[in-house]
Amino acid sequence: MSTPLEPDAQQRAELNEQADRFLEEWYSRVETMNASGEPLTDRQISDLMEPPREQGRDFARILDDLDLAGQAGILHPSSGHMSYIPNGGLYTGAIAEQLAAGLNRYTGVAGAAPGMTAIETGVTQWVAGLFGMGESAAAILLSGGSTANLTGIVAARVNRLGDHFDDGVIYLTAHTHHSVAKAARIAGFRNDQIRIVPVDADLRMRVDVMEEMVTQDTESGLRPFLVVASAGTTDTGTVDDLEAIGAVAKRHELWMHTDAAYGGFFVLTERGRKALAGIGESDSVAVDPHKGLSIPFGVGALVVRDQNYLLDANYGRGAYLNHEEVTQGLRDISSLGPELSRPFRGLSVWLPLQLHGVAPFRKALDDALDVAEHGYERVRQLDGIRANWKPDLSIVAFGFEDDTVGREAMRRVNEDRVTHISSTEVEGRFILRLAVLNRRTTIEDVDHAIDMIQKALIG
Amino acid sequence: MSTPLEPDAQQRAELNEQADRFLEEWYSRVETMNASGEPLTDRQISDLMEPPREQGRDFARILDDLDLAGQAGILHPSSGHMSYIPNGGLYTGAIAEQLAAGLNRYTGVAGAAPGMTAIETGVTQWVAGLFGMGESAAAILLSGGSTANLTGIVAARVNRLGDHFDDGVIYLTAHTHHSVAKAARIAGFRNDQIRIVPVDADLRMRVDVMEEMVTQDTESGLRPFLVVASAGTTDTGTVDDLEAIGAVAKRHELWMHTDAAYGGFFVLTERGRKALAGIGESDSVAVDPHKGLSIPFGVGALVVRDQNYLLDANYGRGAYLNHEEVTQGLRDISSLGPELSRPFRGLSVWLPLQLHGVAPFRKALDDALDVAEHGYERVRQLDGIRANWKPDLSIVAFGFEDDTVGREAMRRVNEDRVTHISSTEVEGRFILRLAVLNRRTTIEDVDHAIDMIQKALIG
Repeated sequence: MSTPLEPDAQQRAELNEQADRFLEEWYSRVETMNASGEPLTDRQISDLMEPPREQGRDFARILDDLDLAGQAGILHPSSGHMSYIPNGGLYTGAIAEQLAAGLNRYTGVAGAAPGMTAIETGVTQWVAGLFGMGESAAAILLSGGSTANLTGIVAARVNRLGDHFDDGVIYLTAHTHHSVAKAARIAGFRNDQIRIVPVDADLRMRVDVMEEMVTQDTESGLRPFLVVASAGTTDTGTVDDLEAIGAVAKRHELWMHTDAAYGGFFVLTERGRKALAGIGESDSVAVDPHKGLSIPFGVGALVVRDQNYLLDANYGRGAYLNHEEVTQGLRDISSLGPELSRPFRGLSVWLPLQLHGVAPFRKALDDALDVAEHGYERVRQLDGIRANWKPDLSIVAFGFEDDTVGREAMRRVNEDRVTHISSTEVEGRFILRLAVLNRRTTIEDVDHAIDMIQKALIG
Repeated sequence: MSTPLEPDAQQRAELNEQADRFLEEWYSRVETMNASGEPLTDRQISDLMEPPREQGRDFARILDDLDLAGQAGILHPSSGHMSYIPNGGLYTGAIAEQLAAGLNRYTGVAGAAPGMTAIETGVTQWVAGLFGMGESAAAILLSGGSTANLTGIVAARVNRLGDHFDDGVIYLTAHTHHSVAKAARIAGFRNDQIRIVPVDADLRMRVDVMEEMVTQDTESGLRPFLVVASAGTTDTGTVDDLEAIGAVAKRHELWMHTDAAYGGFFVLTERGRKALAGIGESDSVAVDPHKGLSIPFGVGALVVRDQNYLLDANYGRGAYLNHEEVTQGLRDISSLGPELSRPFRGLSVWLPLQLHGVAPFRKALDDALDVAEHGYERVRQLDGIRANWKPDLSIVAFGFEDDTVGREAMRRVNEDRVTHISSTEVEGRFILRLAVLNRRTTIEDVDHAIDMIQKALIG
């Protein structure tokens, strides 16, 4: 029998019971969960793609499908997940999403949901206050790093170039996340408006060369307006020299956007604050709660030095004079970003932070730094390793004297499924990386992967 | 005592029990819920904005805060909500969000979550197939109509104008939703690249005038490339003459983007299909599952005639040759839109459609057409009404011989809180509107509002 669109109290209780039991089945084995699953067959894939039918199906069968769907791929909640940028998620984040969707309120305009806008504004102000960007700093929650980078680039474009931006120039490095160049294209820039600044041996932007390029472009009649710093890079976790970039940005009136989607929340730790010194010089910072805070996927943030930057770029009606328009001190969230209707993302960040407090998030990030340091020290002692960078934050990246051995090491680690790691390339050479950010990841997980790498090195 | 980041089985059960009970409290009174709530005090607002503390708080207190926050503003689940574009939400949509966030998997790349990518691809293909846009039609789920319009405009820009688009021209009307012009600005267009085409007495785009403007702009050396049709408008629910727009678009090689964020899913009904005749001529269509399908806020869709349009505009690495890159027949969702990391939106659409079947959604939309027709007939019989447009879909919009009376009528209806309605302006005159889309809205709700309007008219 189909479940009606309006289930009654009894049906609601049953649906909840089944859904909670389903999640419990997953969470009861989260501590022993492999980092990657078994592939699905083509037949299973095509079954999952079946379109909805006129009549509904049994919830239990639907949950079976979802369970099957969840088996394959990379299992983010697993402690062994160290590939790409891991996000272990939060059980209480899922509860927040259920509550937000259950209440289903429109949070684009303060008047439509003043209490919820207050919750979201309060927690985004807390995020905005973490980076030392001054009293006027403000933030907006978006779907992730890509939309945060896009919103930052558009704010920079509007603020520094105005309506005609054909001659604007953007500076980044080969290690800048590719979502930045993608966002620049969406915002209307051509590839030839993007300069790739070389990096030094530590993979940091050559700030001196960047300044030379800026001078040269200015002399050619172009308009350098935006430098994108990384803190840290997705590839190797490298943090650019933010203080030096900030100084050049100031000298040449460039907008400094820092992509700290991965590394930004390390400001909650003492070591992280040191590594990120100078981030307060940024005009905008992208930082993902769904990375550093383990909030479930779908919540990024953009912090700007001045809320007016967001209003100028996004206020739908272009009515600049209405910048003073507030409801009980609250801004319409839709006036600060590209979206009008949107999910109530604020709850997904606010509820876990209120419930757990900031302390355990801070500790989890601090632990990740320890685990990465341990990984680095162990890799140092391996034979056959080259280019073993000391982690600025929590990504352990290193090359092999023989790239073939490196590829074989990765294959063996991932074939085992207990841990999952990924690779990148630096100057055409294979680089293996262990990204520690899932708070469940321990020294044992890192040791498991490195033991297997060691075996591959021995042959 | 703070809840740890990793609650144990007992704690998980307790958290669920409290969250489910909280939602049950809201849903048990959904049928008698007022459409708008009591305002919060400034003190309550500032309490809700409190930043997180180092230590956590009790979940019960947090739920009290959320309950308070939910009281004020416009209550979307209420049957009396007929302002703006109402979305009643779905209890089972909230369960889908809990499950998606609980599993917390990365759905940007097919290889990371093949089963979930299959689920999302299957249901987006179903959406893409509803509009008669041909065999190659494809879709992507985004956060809402704004990002869908943005993604459509960028696809049009890349496809029709290439890298230099300084001379491109966009055609829309004064009734086009303002998110379209906002999206155009984000995509890099200046206001002077946007032409406002006049509308006829029925508020539809004057397609003949649009064609004249296109010809004139072409003769001036500009490049007309995009016409935006509405189906229907947010203001009055008006559907532009899509067939006529399609014919002109074809003749002048314009990209036709149809903003059907509000009205698109009426294609599920016979009357809706008639009203939307010609939508299949579109190159792209924005349609919001979080409007016509009652999916909780945060899920819009963009449908395009050819998936390559999305790949050309969004493939991050600009590697056009890699368009053939698929995993078990599945595209990386991140290659089709602006986002890399993103929530698993597919589940929020797939689960309710699988569980309830398509039939009740179809019926709910058909019922909305009936309720709106009833409202229109009742308004016709009122004295003192002008400009009472016959609804193309489900929005009843009408003016008053005396605008002051209209404003007073709206004030009285909304003061009563049982129903909530909103207004717009057409040619400087006040227009009241009853937007029927919440599937809980009945003839009784509409009658309640119209009875009060009638009283205001009598004086």
